[in-house]
Amino acid sequence: MESKLIDSLIKAVGKEGVLRTPEDLAVYSYDGTFAEGQPDVIVLPGTTEQVSQIVKLAAEARVPLVPRGMGSGLAAGSIPMPRGGIVICLTRMNHILEIDAENATVRAEAGVVTADLQAEVEKRGLFYPPDPSSIRHSTIGGNIACNAGGPRCLKYGVTGDYVLGLTVVLADGSILKTGGKPIKDVTGYDLNGLFTGSEGTLGLITEALLRLVAKPRYARTALAEFASLADASRTVNAILTAGIVPATLELMDQTAIVCIEEAMHLGLRTDVEASLLIETDGADEQTVLREIEASARICQETGARSVKMAQNEAERSSLWKARRSISPSLARKAPNKLGEDITVPRSAIPEVVQRLRAISVKYGLPIVIFGHAGDGNLHPNILFDKRQPDQWAKVEQMVAEIFDASLALGGTLSGEHGVGVLKQPYLERALGPISVGIQRNIKQALDPMNILNPGKIFPA
Amino acid sequence: MESKLIDSLIKAVGKEGVLRTPEDLAVYSYDGTFAEGQPDVIVLPGTTEQVSQIVKLAAEARVPLVPRGMGSGLAAGSIPMPRGGIVICLTRMNHILEIDAENATVRAEAGVVTADLQAEVEKRGLFYPPDPSSIRHSTIGGNIACNAGGPRCLKYGVTGDYVLGLTVVLADGSILKTGGKPIKDVTGYDLNGLFTGSEGTLGLITEALLRLVAKPRYARTALAEFASLADASRTVNAILTAGIVPATLELMDQTAIVCIEEAMHLGLRTDVEASLLIETDGADEQTVLREIEASARICQETGARSVKMAQNEAERSSLWKARRSISPSLARKAPNKLGEDITVPRSAIPEVVQRLRAISVKYGLPIVIFGHAGDGNLHPNILFDKRQPDQWAKVEQMVAEIFDASLALGGTLSGEHGVGVLKQPYLERALGPISVGIQRNIKQALDPMNILNPGKIFPA
Repeated sequence: MESKLIDSLIKAVGKEGVLRTPEDLAVYSYDGTFAEGQPDVIVLPGTTEQVSQIVKLAAEARVPLVPRGMGSGLAAGSIPMPRGGIVICLTRMNHILEIDAENATVRAEAGVVTADLQAEVEKRGLFYPPDPSSIRHSTIGGNIACNAGGPRCLKYGVTGDYVLGLTVVLADGSILKTGGKPIKDVTGYDLNGLFTGSEGTLGLITEALLRLVAKPRYARTALAEFASLADASRTVNAILTAGIVPATLELMDQTAIVCIEEAMHLGLRTDVEASLLIETDGADEQTVLREIEASARICQETGARSVKMAQNEAERSSLWKARRSISPSLARKAPNKLGEDITVPRSAIPEVVQRLRAISVKYGLPIVIFGHAGDGNLHPNILFDKRQPDQWAKVEQMVAEIFDASLALGGTLSGEHGVGVLKQPYLERALGPISVGIQRNIKQALDPMNILNPGKIFPA
Repeated sequence: MESKLIDSLIKAVGKEGVLRTPEDLAVYSYDGTFAEGQPDVIVLPGTTEQVSQIVKLAAEARVPLVPRGMGSGLAAGSIPMPRGGIVICLTRMNHILEIDAENATVRAEAGVVTADLQAEVEKRGLFYPPDPSSIRHSTIGGNIACNAGGPRCLKYGVTGDYVLGLTVVLADGSILKTGGKPIKDVTGYDLNGLFTGSEGTLGLITEALLRLVAKPRYARTALAEFASLADASRTVNAILTAGIVPATLELMDQTAIVCIEEAMHLGLRTDVEASLLIETDGADEQTVLREIEASARICQETGARSVKMAQNEAERSSLWKARRSISPSLARKAPNKLGEDITVPRSAIPEVVQRLRAISVKYGLPIVIFGHAGDGNLHPNILFDKRQPDQWAKVEQMVAEIFDASLALGGTLSGEHGVGVLKQPYLERALGPISVGIQRNIKQALDPMNILNPGKIFPA
């Protein structure tokens, strides 16, 4: 990279905002995946105006710009690919700018960690529902760029459902403001929707105006164990069809239950095919109770072996312990895991689980299955040992077959993580050439020089 | 229009699908506004493939294509402007193709009337919530093209929140399929969001896959009358902040109440500044009751003069009668009305109502105000007599000042109706030149010859 460009970057953001040591370059070469790509330089702007200057400099020099927050992404969307260019890291833009209680909105810079934002608004009795599992270290900007989900999204909707407005630096450095505090707006195209989930390829999100709701005051939790996965799956539908929308409806299949029980000794039955963790929440204690009781009744009617309902906070937290123990339990079982986030029509859950099991048997590596059953969004996690080269090759084939299984059942590649680099080979198979074609046209229209996160979403 | 093109259109859709008599041309020159623009020909395709053929013919001949359903639009978005070209009317594509109870989805052609779709899915215990007031004659395709709202959208969200997938004929005649049955999907850009609300300028929507919810089994309704509009407005916030999300939270200001009472003699108090119609609904009778009782209590605490709660279906329908009588009441008061759909941050409702009143006084024409207070979405209706030329000139100035008032308070031009032709002069003031610029880029990328609904959204 030319030293003239480096000098200009230093001029734009200050010396302390430009990182170039080998250690720094190494740190910013990773995200939450096994992928790796080293930038030439990392820039840490403090304001939208600085971001705009950086984009103008990059555009002038035709140098790729790779935006990132905390680098917790699970699709390699924030790693320079193949390598080089400027990583623009927004973690210093971490200020909550306004909480408007009357209109139930919060305005925040892109680098605010999502859990921090939630804690702040909850102090005022407000609530920002989206809860990706990376919540304690991922940022609002990254959540929006990937349209992040989470267990609570069944009831509350995903990140994009809370985006009222964005500040976006476009590919020519101009600063776009979209939306505003009105909840409804049909004036022109839905730019909030277009930038949300665009993985940094259409513009750099520097600020967001988010919708909030009233903080739920009560929550009730139940765990239901099912001899048959098909019964568990039918139960999900029966609950939703009864007009109950739990905050959370999480499925764990037998592989997950066994894996957790082996690691944690929580007293879970390992002879069941599936369990459902159900949580209702809301402002009214009686309503929340009635909903969990009705859900539990439905579980019994649809053939649950057992239904445990938490009677107090300690019991509630003990029921959640199983779900929260999945990741550490997996780590005890194998050195590495690779988790996907396929999403299928709810009715296809039993069939896709069968197919995932068959893939596991075929390749001789465990696939642990859990996820947001109410959304049809499953996280099959392949367990393996990366040090054994034949295992990595198998994992890649297994991933391809997992995607095939999802697509064959009317499902999709990704419900939460995005395409990034890793899902590119499957994009056209999932969406078809016409869809990919017009998405490329949109990318070309908004970023004609292809400097914003090049090499992401679209196969080269 | 060349007779060769007419012949090709007849070949594509059959003789009975091509209308050209002076009477037909006149009928298809209007929508729900005062605007008018006559097409050269009307084509009524029966399939997506026929739509694709028509688009290819229009593209080849460089002739404008104006899509429409039942022509109930309120922004002149489905009228040829200035005149000429092909109106492509999708009302013959009115089949419900699939109701999938297990996944709670419905697939329908664009020309299905929304109320018909609702009635069909309700037979299976399912529910399609969006309820624009045109529901009995507007179509699903038109609702999606405008991202229609309605009273129930406070709780349930707008049309776009229910769009899972679309079939869209693009400007080159190719057929795009977006989305699918999975509830979550972050594979590539959000094309559902982009086409929803794009008013037929980016592609022609021929089919939709819509998400459904469980049909609410119970509803409870209350009417609260307030001496002060500010109190009524504060009440809206107090209810939402308490964690109650009514299906409906409708505001009528004094002008609306007086107008209804004069026409209908329902026994409404006319010495109050505002009333709120509140309805809660859901699957559980007790919960629905608790929510309406809590809402009524909040109304009393925030200074309501009176709160009437319906004790049975007859009382409920009598409370709704006032709200439903607005349009006929307005018709009795003046020969013409022009209704806008500005949307402001909720907290700005009292201030915007003050400003609307001042505009009314300044021009000497009544403005009747009602709307979806929970969303900040108001319908100021100017009453006038179009036969008096000075009144029409005044109305145009009043509309400009209404938009100014909304924008000045952080509001927007349109919460439900779209931009069409009528709001074009205000578009750049509302969104800024950068936003309009990139929207033009998107339009150019998807419709480079500008044949899809030209002259809409963007000022010439």
